[in-house]
Amino acid sequence: MTTTARHHVVIVGSGFGGLFAAKRLARADVDVTLVSRTVHHLFQPLLYQVATGILSEGEIAPATREVLKRQGNVRVLLGDVLDVDLDARSVTFAGEGTTTTLSYDSLVVAAGAGQSYFGNEHFAEHAPGMKTVDDALELRARIFTAFERAELAATPEARDRALTFVVVGAGPTGVEMAGQIAELANRTLAGEYRSIATSTARIVLLDAADRVLPMFDERLSRDTADRLRRLGVDVRLGGLVTDIDASGLTVRSTRDGGERRIDAETVVWAAGVEANPLGRMIAERAGADTDRAGRVRVEPDTSVPGHPEVFVVGDLMALDGLPGVAQVAIQSGRHAAATIAARVAGRPEPGPFRYWDKGSMATISRFAAVAEVGRIRLTGFVAWVAWLFVHLLYLIGFKNRVTTLLHWAISFVGRGRTQRAVTRQQIVARTVLQRVEKERVGGTAADAHVSEEARRRA
Amino acid sequence: MTTTARHHVVIVGSGFGGLFAAKRLARADVDVTLVSRTVHHLFQPLLYQVATGILSEGEIAPATREVLKRQGNVRVLLGDVLDVDLDARSVTFAGEGTTTTLSYDSLVVAAGAGQSYFGNEHFAEHAPGMKTVDDALELRARIFTAFERAELAATPEARDRALTFVVVGAGPTGVEMAGQIAELANRTLAGEYRSIATSTARIVLLDAADRVLPMFDERLSRDTADRLRRLGVDVRLGGLVTDIDASGLTVRSTRDGGERRIDAETVVWAAGVEANPLGRMIAERAGADTDRAGRVRVEPDTSVPGHPEVFVVGDLMALDGLPGVAQVAIQSGRHAAATIAARVAGRPEPGPFRYWDKGSMATISRFAAVAEVGRIRLTGFVAWVAWLFVHLLYLIGFKNRVTTLLHWAISFVGRGRTQRAVTRQQIVARTVLQRVEKERVGGTAADAHVSEEARRRA
Repeated sequence: MTTTARHHVVIVGSGFGGLFAAKRLARADVDVTLVSRTVHHLFQPLLYQVATGILSEGEIAPATREVLKRQGNVRVLLGDVLDVDLDARSVTFAGEGTTTTLSYDSLVVAAGAGQSYFGNEHFAEHAPGMKTVDDALELRARIFTAFERAELAATPEARDRALTFVVVGAGPTGVEMAGQIAELANRTLAGEYRSIATSTARIVLLDAADRVLPMFDERLSRDTADRLRRLGVDVRLGGLVTDIDASGLTVRSTRDGGERRIDAETVVWAAGVEANPLGRMIAERAGADTDRAGRVRVEPDTSVPGHPEVFVVGDLMALDGLPGVAQVAIQSGRHAAATIAARVAGRPEPGPFRYWDKGSMATISRFAAVAEVGRIRLTGFVAWVAWLFVHLLYLIGFKNRVTTLLHWAISFVGRGRTQRAVTRQQIVARTVLQRVEKERVGGTAADAHVSEEARRRA
Repeated sequence: MTTTARHHVVIVGSGFGGLFAAKRLARADVDVTLVSRTVHHLFQPLLYQVATGILSEGEIAPATREVLKRQGNVRVLLGDVLDVDLDARSVTFAGEGTTTTLSYDSLVVAAGAGQSYFGNEHFAEHAPGMKTVDDALELRARIFTAFERAELAATPEARDRALTFVVVGAGPTGVEMAGQIAELANRTLAGEYRSIATSTARIVLLDAADRVLPMFDERLSRDTADRLRRLGVDVRLGGLVTDIDASGLTVRSTRDGGERRIDAETVVWAAGVEANPLGRMIAERAGADTDRAGRVRVEPDTSVPGHPEVFVVGDLMALDGLPGVAQVAIQSGRHAAATIAARVAGRPEPGPFRYWDKGSMATISRFAAVAEVGRIRLTGFVAWVAWLFVHLLYLIGFKNRVTTLLHWAISFVGRGRTQRAVTRQQIVARTVLQRVEKERVGGTAADAHVSEEARRRA
């Protein structure tokens, strides 16, 4: 293998960590290759808006190469990393039928994390996660067709099962999903159905912990739970999911160990994350450690022990107990890039990574949020305005996206849910799944065939 | 089966015919049930904008029940019609795992048409049609990942194959697709790739006829072909597709019968339509005829011979050689509804359906279109403004959709292509398909594995 004269940085991943590492290298004397398994960067904090029909997937997932278009020293390639050879300093990936091996001088691994079902992989089929565009579109289809199923239901039991939505995990994503499903049921869809009142939908927010948003101040957790309850969300804490199938889930109480069944056909899994398997591969080969979630324990400068030229950032990185949030990914990606840039320029390296906690926020509903910045705690409308401001600021960072910005502004302030299309593929897949499950559990005749009498309105 | 006191109209389909039939019955003393296999109405004339990343699917596919929300006498149900019993006057459909039978007093069948491959069903896998949201999203993924594949290509042949786009069928949809792919390659994507110049992409517009837009005046056809050629589209007329596989297609000249191969991985099929099979079922049971495309030959008032209570409208209807366009569907749907409303009210029926030809239009690129209204023929910018005006007028017809209208206005005038997200499912499915084909045709080693030397920029 030959190397070109210029220092070559390979970045794996187009999420916050990878994208901001690439941007930070704009003026460095390096060639950058960013390899990603998706064509888009994903603005994950707004994924719940795609899952509930507010924004289109394109609005939160700009093409990575469009974002980096004007940065001449970066090329973007689509591919799944198959292998990292730390001794040969090369990365092998497969994309669109072509397998490619790239040698690197520096490597930044920002492959992120996926949903974790804590060993219960069979939950995934019935309870999609909330990590990717695929997840959000799948959930959007499931949520909207659940109301269709309720409208068609032959029995009150079938209707109630279709109208029960369970969100597992009461972190920001879970809180946002529960709040938005409640808004859908209580407001957006009100008056659109004839056989059901959508406001009778039951939305359950479940967590094994004893409060929602455990990373926030306790008062904010209480305020959030109160607001959710006022929206009609059934907030259930201290409940551990032990099983999920097509028609519901089983929950064990962390207090008394008692098991309860919840009949529900739509379940959202927002309960845990698991690092990309690339983390374990790299750790193993470097002789480094991983934590329980499979994240690589890195040196203070985010490099891998024994391999100062390899950096692991973002959700894949275990360092000082930092959480898997966008700001950690952005800042650690930038830090790794700054370290590389300094090295190449022969300047002193920035040294240990220091996270600047800009605070946390979560929206509950339109015009209501909670935010915590240092000692400042905001709730309600004020917090929502802060939330909007921060997200718009972030967006403005993406140049040349006026169209998107205007689209966003309209969607944020408007009441509309313009994104309600469901593909035939999704409907058919769902129907086939339902049929298979019905056969397995032995559905009743009343479920399968309904007479005219039951159908027509009185 | 019992019937309620009120006259019950069942409408099958939520396209232009079905939706406008339902709306026309707003003030009639009837109950309406609209059954559709999709949750959305589809504004099909703009489907090419979804396939090329300009609009999101939600913007052209509003939820049918949202559009009809305020019309209290309509209910909307999701389902595939399995059976129509003309004697018992009942429709049986399956939706979301529930099978339902509805009796009707009047029936309006507006089930539309799908793509026709003229008996070559195996073309479908390699050349998606342009009839549904599924089609548009599939094509969007194929078009955008084709450029990714070209960027990764190991050989010039593989790159050229990935950068060749063939649109089969030079009607309005084909012209619009070819024009938009050319804009993508020449403008939108310019400067985003490092190993390829996107403007070297080859876009072929193919038709067996001897001119594009055969339904328009000849001068407009010439003008359109000229404009497309200036955009870099290779307009090839008099060519019949005889085979399509994963790596290209075979075209037979209608002049000399000679066969030519075009190496291309992305093929759009916009060449023919075939009526929904429901047409043949109804015709058979009523003893009526269908035309070659499977459309039902109806009476002058759009009813089925011998069944004055059953109407077939839109693309499923064969009457006076009327074309399968939106205006025919809208007007025939309204006509059938007006006939039912008059009957129920005891007023004289409107009689034979008369189509008011409002003209035809097709966009070629941003700011250029052709339009023909009676003897008026418009081209270029003037035609584009007319096109925009007509489409915005139509949209305003959908109440309560200010958000969408603003989104549209921004997308139409802006240069942005904000909708470029590709799901992992699409990438993986495509890769698997490529691999299977490669194994079948025996790909070369160079295609499958590329060394570092070939990859790095000089």
